[in-house]
Amino acid sequence: MGAAAVYGMALGKKDLKKSAEKLRATRPTAHDLFYAIDYMIDKINNRENEFNAASKYVEDIIERCKKIGENGEELIKDGMNILTHCNAGALATVDYGTALAPLRLAYRNGKKIFVFVDETRPRCQGLLTAWELKQEGIDYAVIADNAAGYFLRNGEIDITITGADRIAKNGDFANKIGTYEKAVLAKENKIPFYVAAPVSTFDDDIKDGGQIIIEERDRNELLKINRKTIMPEWVTVKNPAFDVTPAEYVTGYITENGIIKR
Amino acid sequence: MGAAAVYGMALGKKDLKKSAEKLRATRPTAHDLFYAIDYMIDKINNRENEFNAASKYVEDIIERCKKIGENGEELIKDGMNILTHCNAGALATVDYGTALAPLRLAYRNGKKIFVFVDETRPRCQGLLTAWELKQEGIDYAVIADNAAGYFLRNGEIDITITGADRIAKNGDFANKIGTYEKAVLAKENKIPFYVAAPVSTFDDDIKDGGQIIIEERDRNELLKINRKTIMPEWVTVKNPAFDVTPAEYVTGYITENGIIKR
Repeated sequence: MGAAAVYGMALGKKDLKKSAEKLRATRPTAHDLFYAIDYMIDKINNRENEFNAASKYVEDIIERCKKIGENGEELIKDGMNILTHCNAGALATVDYGTALAPLRLAYRNGKKIFVFVDETRPRCQGLLTAWELKQEGIDYAVIADNAAGYFLRNGEIDITITGADRIAKNGDFANKIGTYEKAVLAKENKIPFYVAAPVSTFDDDIKDGGQIIIEERDRNELLKINRKTIMPEWVTVKNPAFDVTPAEYVTGYITENGIIKR
Repeated sequence: MGAAAVYGMALGKKDLKKSAEKLRATRPTAHDLFYAIDYMIDKINNRENEFNAASKYVEDIIERCKKIGENGEELIKDGMNILTHCNAGALATVDYGTALAPLRLAYRNGKKIFVFVDETRPRCQGLLTAWELKQEGIDYAVIADNAAGYFLRNGEIDITITGADRIAKNGDFANKIGTYEKAVLAKENKIPFYVAAPVSTFDDDIKDGGQIIIEERDRNELLKINRKTIMPEWVTVKNPAFDVTPAEYVTGYITENGIIKR
């Protein structure tokens, strides 16, 4: 998102304030997005070439994600089964991804791994993750979000790794709806739960998760999948798009600067 | 299921053994189904009229579900928000349903209630529950299975009630995939979790949940919803249809004979 936002800011250079507002509104929970926008405002105000600045930002974030991968790879042992939620791969964060970066590097280093991919209703971003893993050659299975607990309890999952939208000062973090459920289930079954994110995801202005605003999104996200209507129009729904996972459920934060333990 | 099975046995009277085998295989987890089949074998072997016996069974189960409703209604206070999973209503268990029976009676007795209905992927039986609640006039919202934890943590749910397929001697029970997740999340958030089921669901021949066999169902359940393809053919999936919730997560079992506390 940050990578897309810096180019958006470059294109919207004529009215920086309006461009920033518009881009921030696309995903209020995402701190990396806000970070990228502020970076561009600073560069453009300092009369740097906007496209050079954007490219530099993207190269830097790719390097950071690679380091997240290197740091996180230490946690992945040969033969491990990993659970992930939503998409925190190349399609979300360019090239390596965040949560998928350690898996990519483990696989490239010859470790045999298997990934349980939550479907991630309502938007089914698990399909994006499945597609990325297939491209990389990593074995995986998409599971109903309801089934993650079943596999965690059965001892079929060794570690859980997700991304994060925004991490508060105390370690509480916002991420795609359902992340909290999987974190509770991992803890209940004594399975380590890691969050992979660049330091730009940490928002020290926010004391704890209670201050993170959760978007309620359009009902059509539930009523439709891939533009196909799966529920009748009369159905009443509630659709919170994100949730907050308290820090107590997190085993560690995998960043480009190392793994921060709690 | 028991109500359908007794008529199935009546129609398949000519080869009782084959009919019983065929019907048992439709849902190996469901103890009420097995109970109904054994009842019919006994009645037919004792030369009772098969359709009279089937009718009597169905009238009896309706009465039992009504009593489940009466017993469970005591737990529902005016203004309560209730979470339910899958469909344990009239469409699954005729007339009153099991988990939905207390809600129906609470509503009919003038209590204002709101029901959070898990979508229940992969088969989305939450839509059946939504349809039943709408017919009854009860306010509800279908939510992504991922969102149940969010609402439980936010204090928006006062009680959780689900049905059960089979309850082992120690209280562990099998139910639709995802039930275990919601039970863990309810306990983590100190929200009571009740199982509503007739005594025919208790299988004392099974010591604990470890002995309950879980069906792995067809991949197309995940790939399609309501016959609409929502995932591409290349996607690899795992699809356990049920899970086992340990007794420690259950606050009580609502039966026709009263609420059994743990």
